[in-house]
Parts: sequence; C-alpha cells; structure tokens
Amino acid sequence: MLQTPPAAPGMREEEIDTPALVLDLDAFEANLASMRDMLAPTGAKLRAHAKTHKSPVIAHRQIAHGAIGQCVQKVGEAEVLAWGGVPDILVSNEVVGAGKLARLVALAKIAQVAVCADDAAHVAAAEAAAEAAGIRLSMLVEIDVGGARCGVAPGPEAAALAGRIAASKHLRFGGLHAYHGSAQHLRRAEQRHFAIAAAAEGCRRTVDILRQQGLDCPIVSGGGTGTFMLEAQSGVYNEVQAGSYVFMDADYGRNLDASGQERSPFRQSLFVLATVMSASRQGLAVVDAGHKAVAVDSGLPLVAGLAGVKYVGASDEHGKLAVEGGEAPKLGQKLRLVPGHCDPTVDRYDWYVGVRNGRVECLWPIGARGMMA
Amino acid sequence: MLQTPPAAPGMREEEIDTPALVLDLDAFEANLASMRDMLAPTGAKLRAHAKTHKSPVIAHRQIAHGAIGQCVQKVGEAEVLAWGGVPDILVSNEVVGAGKLARLVALAKIAQVAVCADDAAHVAAAEAAAEAAGIRLSMLVEIDVGGARCGVAPGPEAAALAGRIAASKHLRFGGLHAYHGSAQHLRRAEQRHFAIAAAAEGCRRTVDILRQQGLDCPIVSGGGTGTFMLEAQSGVYNEVQAGSYVFMDADYGRNLDASGQERSPFRQSLFVLATVMSASRQGLAVVDAGHKAVAVDSGLPLVAGLAGVKYVGASDEHGKLAVEGGEAPKLGQKLRLVPGHCDPTVDRYDWYVGVRNGRVECLWPIGARGMMA
Repeated sequence: MLQTPPAAPGMREEEIDTPALVLDLDAFEANLASMRDMLAPTGAKLRAHAKTHKSPVIAHRQIAHGAIGQCVQKVGEAEVLAWGGVPDILVSNEVVGAGKLARLVALAKIAQVAVCADDAAHVAAAEAAAEAAGIRLSMLVEIDVGGARCGVAPGPEAAALAGRIAASKHLRFGGLHAYHGSAQHLRRAEQRHFAIAAAAEGCRRTVDILRQQGLDCPIVSGGGTGTFMLEAQSGVYNEVQAGSYVFMDADYGRNLDASGQERSPFRQSLFVLATVMSASRQGLAVVDAGHKAVAVDSGLPLVAGLAGVKYVGASDEHGKLAVEGGEAPKLGQKLRLVPGHCDPTVDRYDWYVGVRNGRVECLWPIGARGMMA
Repeated sequence: MLQTPPAAPGMREEEIDTPALVLDLDAFEANLASMRDMLAPTGAKLRAHAKTHKSPVIAHRQIAHGAIGQCVQKVGEAEVLAWGGVPDILVSNEVVGAGKLARLVALAKIAQVAVCADDAAHVAAAEAAAEAAGIRLSMLVEIDVGGARCGVAPGPEAAALAGRIAASKHLRFGGLHAYHGSAQHLRRAEQRHFAIAAAAEGCRRTVDILRQQGLDCPIVSGGGTGTFMLEAQSGVYNEVQAGSYVFMDADYGRNLDASGQERSPFRQSLFVLATVMSASRQGLAVVDAGHKAVAVDSGLPLVAGLAGVKYVGASDEHGKLAVEGGEAPKLGQKLRLVPGHCDPTVDRYDWYVGVRNGRVECLWPIGARGMMA
C-alpha cells in the first residue's frame, strides 16, 4: 500500500498530517536557479542525481533549469524516470544480474540509457543483454578516484576496460564515471580541493591514454553537492552529478566554505514536519518522527526555527527533543525538522508536500521510492 | 509505486532478485512455537508488536500460536491490520490530531481497538472522537517505567489520569501500558532483571492505588524481546508486547543470557539477501545493499555463514565487505546479511520472501510498510 497523501493543495502548513515530507518551494526553486547560474560559466553540464529525489517531477524541474539528464543508482529508479518521460539516464553504478540488465536495455527504446562497469564480467553481461534486445548500450568505465569502493584504477587498467567496451558491436564506450563520494563531506574547503585535484588528475591521465589508443571519451562525470564546482572547473570533467543541492541537509550544512564558515550557495528546502505527541516531562518533548521517518545515518535532525530546542534521540517512531532554553514546544505543536541526510529520508515517503507562504501548493509523488533493485 | 516482487514460489534462493527480505520459514515457525511454549506456564498473554513485521499475514500466524492480538505504534498500522482481519489491536502509543483519532475510532466497528494517553489533553481528544463516532473507546494510561520518553509517573499521577478516563461516558479505562524500551538491549541479564523489577514495582504501586479508587486494571502490558519473561513472571504484567522475537537481529543477538553467553531462545529468521556487484579491489567486495536496504541505526549488519567476511561500511546503496580470511565473495555471488535492527529494515520492503530448504515457498506483502501517520 502507498501512504495516504498527508495534505491537499490549499491547506495551511499546520493542517498537514504528520510525519510528512515538506518541500519549501521558494527555497527549492532558488536552488535550481543557483545551480544553473553557477555552472553556466564553467561549461560543465548538470546530470543531477535522482538518488536524492526519486521523482520524475523533480527531474523535469531540473531539466527545465539546464540539466542534461539524470543519474540513478538502480535499474528500478531508471525505470520510474524513463516511464515518467526523462529522456537521458545514466545508471552511475554497476548492474549485476541478467534480469536487471534485461530491464535496463528494455528502457533503451524510450530513453537514452547508460550504465557503468569496473570488471570485464560487467561488460560481457551487458553485451549479452544488449544483443538480446537488439540495441547498442552506452557503457562507462567507473574509475576509483578516492572512494575506495567500486571502480578500477585510473590509467592503463581503466583504458583496457574501455577498449573492451569499444570493441563490442553491442556496446558503445560512453566515457568515465569518476565520482569521489567520500570527498563530499570533507569539512574544510582545502581538503575538498586537494581530493578533487587528485581525482581530476586520475581522469586526465586516463583520458590521455584513451586518446593514444584512438578512443574518444565523450563523458567524464562526477562531483556531488560538496565538490561539484571543483569538478566543473577542472578542465577534464564535463558533467557533474550533484543531487542533494535541491534539498540540502544537516550534514551538508556542516561543510565549511573557503572562509571557514558553514555556508552554502543552497538553501534548506526539505523538512520533515512532525507533531509533539507527548510532553509529560519537564524539559523534554516527544515528536512523532523517529528514525523510521527521518534518516539518522549521517546524524540526528535539527529543529528548524526553535532556538534552544534540540533533537537528541531517535527511536523507531519517536524523536526526543530536549528543551534547553526558550519556549518548550506544546503538545500538538507542529515543527519542521532538518534531516541529517536527505536521500534516505526521502526514501521513507510516498509524497512531497510543496509549501509556499504557509500554504500547501502541490503534492508530488516519490515514484521511485524504495526502488532498490 | 510498490516494489516488484523479487521472486516467485518455486525459485531457488540464488534466483531471488536483490536486495530482498528473506524469511527463513523454519526459523520463523520455531520462534512462534518457542514464544508460545515459554509464555504458557506464566499465564501472561502475548500481544505481539506489529511495528516489527507490519503485516497482517504474520499477525495471523502469531495469533494462531496463541497471541491474543497485536500492538502497533501508528494509526496507519492499526488500519492495515484491522482491514486484514486482526481482531484486537492496541496502539501502544499516544495519538495526536483529530484526523488520526477519527481514523482510529472508525476501526472500532471492525476490530477491538485501544490507545494510550499520558496527558489529560489526549483523553479529551479521544473522548471527542469516540463521541462523534458513537463508540466507546478503550484507553490505557502509559506510565514511564524507565524509558524517559512518553508516559506519566507511576503512582498517583497515573491513577488520576486513569480516573479521568474512567469518568468518561465515551471511554473505557483499559489498563496500563508500561513498556521499558531501554531495558531491552541492556546486555547483561542482571541489568535487565533489575530494570524490569523496578518497572513491575511501578505497575504494582499504580494498580494498588487504582484498586483503592475502586478501579479495576484489566491490562498491564509491556515487555519486549529482551525482557518479556521477566514481565511475564512478575505477577503484575498480564500481557507482553515482544515483536522482534519472530525475526531477531544482530543487536538482540548481542544480549547475554544468565550465564554470560550471547544466546537467545529464538533463531535468526530474517535476512537481507544481497549480491556482490563489484569486487575490483583485493580484500574488498561491494554488495548492492547499503543503508537504504538494511537499517544501520543499531549497528551494521553481519554476513551470515561466511567466516572472515565482515560488513564494514554502508553508504546509501552500497555495502562494503572486508575479506579478512577465508574465501573472498565473487562478483555476482549472493549472500545473506543479518540486519542490525529488524523493525526499520522491514520498513524498507514491500515483500517478505519466505524460503525453506533453499526454495521460495511464499511471498507475503508488508502491508503496513511506511504507515507512519
């Protein structure tokens, strides 16, 4: 079953049923525009990561603001986007299993799709799926530029795998996927600078070898919300994959800018609206949003706009607020939480509730919620 | 959209699409029987907590093994159970908001429902909802027996609130909800013993005062998988609310028994099946189940049955396995993960895949997945 929509257009924010995922539309639109304006002078294109929003509606808003397409992590996410009319989708990940690959190539008739490899076995399996579907599938080589997770080493190893792809009648070499995940949350600007300089150097070296092999590298893709301007200005990346920028979260909010301030070009647009459901103890209030409602993998949520009130503990369905000054939240009061991490928080909901000037303006379905396969 | 079922009856386990929630049916059935057999001599009844399984199918299996009903935390969970034919449901939590209360009392025509209060405002709101629906709603007083979250203090304060409920024409005083959540994972048996002895003392004191007020206390309910035998043998609790026992998880697995061993009367029946999707580095394998697929709020999952292989890091859609001896998992290999925490892991899935002797025997929908409101 899907969740019942927690609101209807026209309602006041206080009338929204909780817990609910509230999208501040002014902040959201400002983020779309900021990203477009920041990238414009660099020449790099945005291929926004849909693992954040999981919604064709938001994908289309990003495309309307200059994005050339979307990234996803899973075939199930690619399906929902393609079915929702998104024309260009990169699975920025390896896909294993004949069933999953058959689903992916089936999408090639309605959208441009591409997928990554870091092993000859991925190439062989994709080749078989593409041949069976009678299409030519674009495949990128994932290189490990510091995340130490998936990806082959930059340089000759990556170039060899690219050559294997390019040699296939059923595949097309799409380029390099070179995302440095662990650099996104390095707190100091110079740490991020050094990490992405090294990543760009790995890309450059690989592109040079490919050129010597006579192979063109159409896409060099990477960069998240923490570093995308570094990739965009590197001279080698031509696509950036930022996703969280549309929403932001408490964890990205802790990144420091070059002057050492917690400051971002993006505004917090995503909130979990919660209700105080118990206030039986002095100095404590309990809200109806625990870690089933707001992800805690990157830290606890913050309480927006209430000085002295701190979210101090999450159990499955309860959040404990400590009141350390200011006015204590009252039983029944609704308040906005800033999620610690936006992507997995979105994955708990079927609906965005778009709010402007205190009123519900729209409901948008999170169509790819839970599409993990 | 719901997730596509990851399997079909008759398939071999290796053919299940991943990530998937696999239920070992032999272990699951053994757990149902163990709970029934352990509680029988105590006289306490099981009101199993559905926040763990979120499924009418499993609720009915528990009832077939002696449970008198179910607990839930949310009205949305109560709805799915009542619609699925579960006859007796306690919302072991406070419910705030006229809309939610209207939904709850609407269920009273098809199931016996009850809800908790820890404030006179909860009582007044429930009274209004019950009156509007023309029903008499059972309401329990939640007492704080050590969790320091919701609940009034045991003793006179609790008795006063019970009196307020009993005085209402539209409510019925149902008893005491006295769950000690933080005691469940106290590692040493004597710690749990002392915590529940104190909780039982609080219940006893409150029941005595109620009796002096001329109020009967039909239900005294509490106890989870970590402590339920202590409540059942306390002489004051007459219902226990254990939920995790049907599945177990890595965190409960770390509780020690009276002899200091990590040993439980229950077997691990719930697993996340994952596939190795990248193995490009020596000593490391990456599976397709990160923290969107397996909850990490109570620790990382364990890898079942592969000595020397450890799940060491979860990102959104990737899990890193360190290979510290033994054979390294191969690209494409499927393996079972033991979730750190079963409840929120179940909440990521729409389907249980029931497996016996290596074959898929059934698919059961997780109907109350995501019913947070």
